[in-house]
Amino acid sequence: MSTLVKDLTELLSSEQVSTNETVLHQHGQDESYHEVAEPEVVVFPKSTEEVSAILRYANEHCIPVTPYGRGSSLEAHVIPYSGGITIDFALMNRILSIRPEDLLVVVEPGVSRLELNEALAKHGLFFSVDPGADATLGGMVATNASGTTTVRYGVMRDQVRDLEVVLADGTVMNTGSLAAKSASGYHLNGLFAGSEGTLGCFTKLTLRVYGIPEHVMAARATFNTIEEAVQAVTTVLQVGIPIARVELVDEESIRQVNRHDEMDFEEKPTLFLEFHGNEAGLKQDVEFTTELMTDAGCQSIQFETETAARNHLWEARHNLAYSYIHSNPGKKMMVTDVCVPISELSGAIHHAREQLEAVGLVGGILGHVGDGNFHALVMVDMNDAKEVELSNQFNESIVHYALSKNGTCTGEHGVGIGKQKYQEAEHGEAYHAMKLIKKALDPNNILNPGKIVKVD
Amino acid sequence: MSTLVKDLTELLSSEQVSTNETVLHQHGQDESYHEVAEPEVVVFPKSTEEVSAILRYANEHCIPVTPYGRGSSLEAHVIPYSGGITIDFALMNRILSIRPEDLLVVVEPGVSRLELNEALAKHGLFFSVDPGADATLGGMVATNASGTTTVRYGVMRDQVRDLEVVLADGTVMNTGSLAAKSASGYHLNGLFAGSEGTLGCFTKLTLRVYGIPEHVMAARATFNTIEEAVQAVTTVLQVGIPIARVELVDEESIRQVNRHDEMDFEEKPTLFLEFHGNEAGLKQDVEFTTELMTDAGCQSIQFETETAARNHLWEARHNLAYSYIHSNPGKKMMVTDVCVPISELSGAIHHAREQLEAVGLVGGILGHVGDGNFHALVMVDMNDAKEVELSNQFNESIVHYALSKNGTCTGEHGVGIGKQKYQEAEHGEAYHAMKLIKKALDPNNILNPGKIVKVD
Repeated sequence: MSTLVKDLTELLSSEQVSTNETVLHQHGQDESYHEVAEPEVVVFPKSTEEVSAILRYANEHCIPVTPYGRGSSLEAHVIPYSGGITIDFALMNRILSIRPEDLLVVVEPGVSRLELNEALAKHGLFFSVDPGADATLGGMVATNASGTTTVRYGVMRDQVRDLEVVLADGTVMNTGSLAAKSASGYHLNGLFAGSEGTLGCFTKLTLRVYGIPEHVMAARATFNTIEEAVQAVTTVLQVGIPIARVELVDEESIRQVNRHDEMDFEEKPTLFLEFHGNEAGLKQDVEFTTELMTDAGCQSIQFETETAARNHLWEARHNLAYSYIHSNPGKKMMVTDVCVPISELSGAIHHAREQLEAVGLVGGILGHVGDGNFHALVMVDMNDAKEVELSNQFNESIVHYALSKNGTCTGEHGVGIGKQKYQEAEHGEAYHAMKLIKKALDPNNILNPGKIVKVD
Repeated sequence: MSTLVKDLTELLSSEQVSTNETVLHQHGQDESYHEVAEPEVVVFPKSTEEVSAILRYANEHCIPVTPYGRGSSLEAHVIPYSGGITIDFALMNRILSIRPEDLLVVVEPGVSRLELNEALAKHGLFFSVDPGADATLGGMVATNASGTTTVRYGVMRDQVRDLEVVLADGTVMNTGSLAAKSASGYHLNGLFAGSEGTLGCFTKLTLRVYGIPEHVMAARATFNTIEEAVQAVTTVLQVGIPIARVELVDEESIRQVNRHDEMDFEEKPTLFLEFHGNEAGLKQDVEFTTELMTDAGCQSIQFETETAARNHLWEARHNLAYSYIHSNPGKKMMVTDVCVPISELSGAIHHAREQLEAVGLVGGILGHVGDGNFHALVMVDMNDAKEVELSNQFNESIVHYALSKNGTCTGEHGVGIGKQKYQEAEHGEAYHAMKLIKKALDPNNILNPGKIVKVD
């Protein structure tokens, strides 16, 4: 047994410290195509005090520490390329309190979003951020996750009211309060949300929740061109219709779903929409939306209010990723994630489609079009050096286009390792300021080193 | 002419540098009761380059720099207690671009919110944050201003998409991009918004704007007790009715307005509400709200849609501060600004009312009740040491109550000097982290020294 493992076993208990090969391997990967790298040891703390003890120890001995939720990240956030200790928050998974009057919950970082939603439903409440995967809430705050509902309810950072954070040296602090707004101190909630474990480990999260909407209506609308679909969404947002979700799927991807799932969706650029509100308001929103979309060139539009019918209407969108994965056995999915101002979205998608055709890889485009965030999916054989190189070139070309339009290299997947190389190009002098902050809060660079900022 | 003034005149031009006594005096105060302190010199830069040159110079010579908008702050943010240079952004007041498709504007920091709204109206757009005063947008970002519409549209920080910032050493950087969402880098937008000029000076702001709502409806509702009024708002928010404004005014303040303005508003705790949306949706929202409020003990409720009638309905709320000021000549208004979780709001207001009666000063209570933020106004004769002491005790008692309920000492007015003494009590270990950030970004402590954090 190494000194490290022995010391950690003394700080915790033997069943909370693992060097089991399967456990190490599981904590050496995420859901992405990035290279596997294992930690030296995985620990499973049960309390803030234990997390603090681990960090104090690691800081004294300059041992890298990587926090881990469920490993559903897509840019290698949780892969410990410098080895050291991985902290798995699986045992810190209690919902500590639900405060319906304050529309707040307090949870430990290991609770997943579906677990939370199950508990909230009894109170007529729901948690709004839906990144697809059933990630832990700690991981979702760490990566500033978002998804289909962001156009209405905001990103993960917008839901954070307070975080209990353990800093590199073991200090425990709170980044916020329970007040709905504050002009006190620096905005540490915002700084720590999205910091990907590089500034501290979260041990308690106070998050905003919402009342389940009275009525929900889903829609699917087809267009002849992506430009028309994007223009339709722009107009609807401009007049202030509060769409809850609006997703774009290109015709290539609809074709893929039809082929794989034996469906017969119309093979055109398609918008999937959802509206939340009261019955009368939704009716008027839907009428106005139909009018605006028709003016923008909409070819067909269908609405559904019943849950089953709504789900059926959205099926092509939901099945998209799996359809690509199952149709391409042995290949890994690489996903781009740029976000551009919405006025630049048509152009950016057009460019992505051209590049996709140029590299000749199988793939499609889908977008959280209300935010200007879109994904180009490509299926890559990771053992084929040429395919890997082409997919990297493709990703780079998409990123450079987005940056040239004053967009960002990552709308929601985060930096991790995959987008590290674009940080300086995107942030310029601000990247230097980020390094100063990292150095000030983690002088020994033990916290998820190499992610977001590279310090010397 | 001092060396400082001579050097600045060389960097800028003589008409951009002032040591005129009236100018110095104007820049030595804000709208609050705080002590006056004049800068050594006031400069009026016209460009980012000039701001950068001023800061580079000040940093080399360790001269304090205080940024200044229109001096409407309430906690002495702009008062240069360490002397040095005040940068007045009056000449950087251009609206650089309006992007209706992206729902964004780019402005210089000296543009005021009413100037912006005038320009936006032509495009069917509006800027949502309304702190009362016609402050500059630079100042509003610096203090993370908010106000009556925050319950629906968020605080100033929520509107910031990008800031061009000049750091202490003259470096120019951008904190964001034009993308609606981003998971790239640390969240510098959030860190710099609300930093009160202590981390950098803003030279360009990219801000979010909204489509003017199709329909607006105003309401006024009276209750027998503040508890019932707060409970009514809690219920309405919990079911997700998207109120655009909801203000509480206590009966003492209604009485004050009646007396001063010869009105006959019912002298009961009163809610002033506003709803934004489509016509059918508003109708249903209003019906549901009436039902919920009646269940919560509402005694009377009136609705208006026409602009003039809406304004009349809200008159008592709008006139409140002036009514107190004009009825108490020679006295200054001191305003508390705590924010608590909404479940604690009734208790906090009850406590404030008790304290107000105990100290025996003239005053009233009004609140942005949807956010849990309320103000207790007291009229103070600043030459009467006893009154000043009582009002300070009153303020402290309100703050300590709020902190004991996990609230904040300031919901929207900011820290400045007035709330500096509560920073350590409110933030605990996080206050230390804030100091580390301040030292990392402004090692010579030249930027608005003594505000928010005190560094050695």
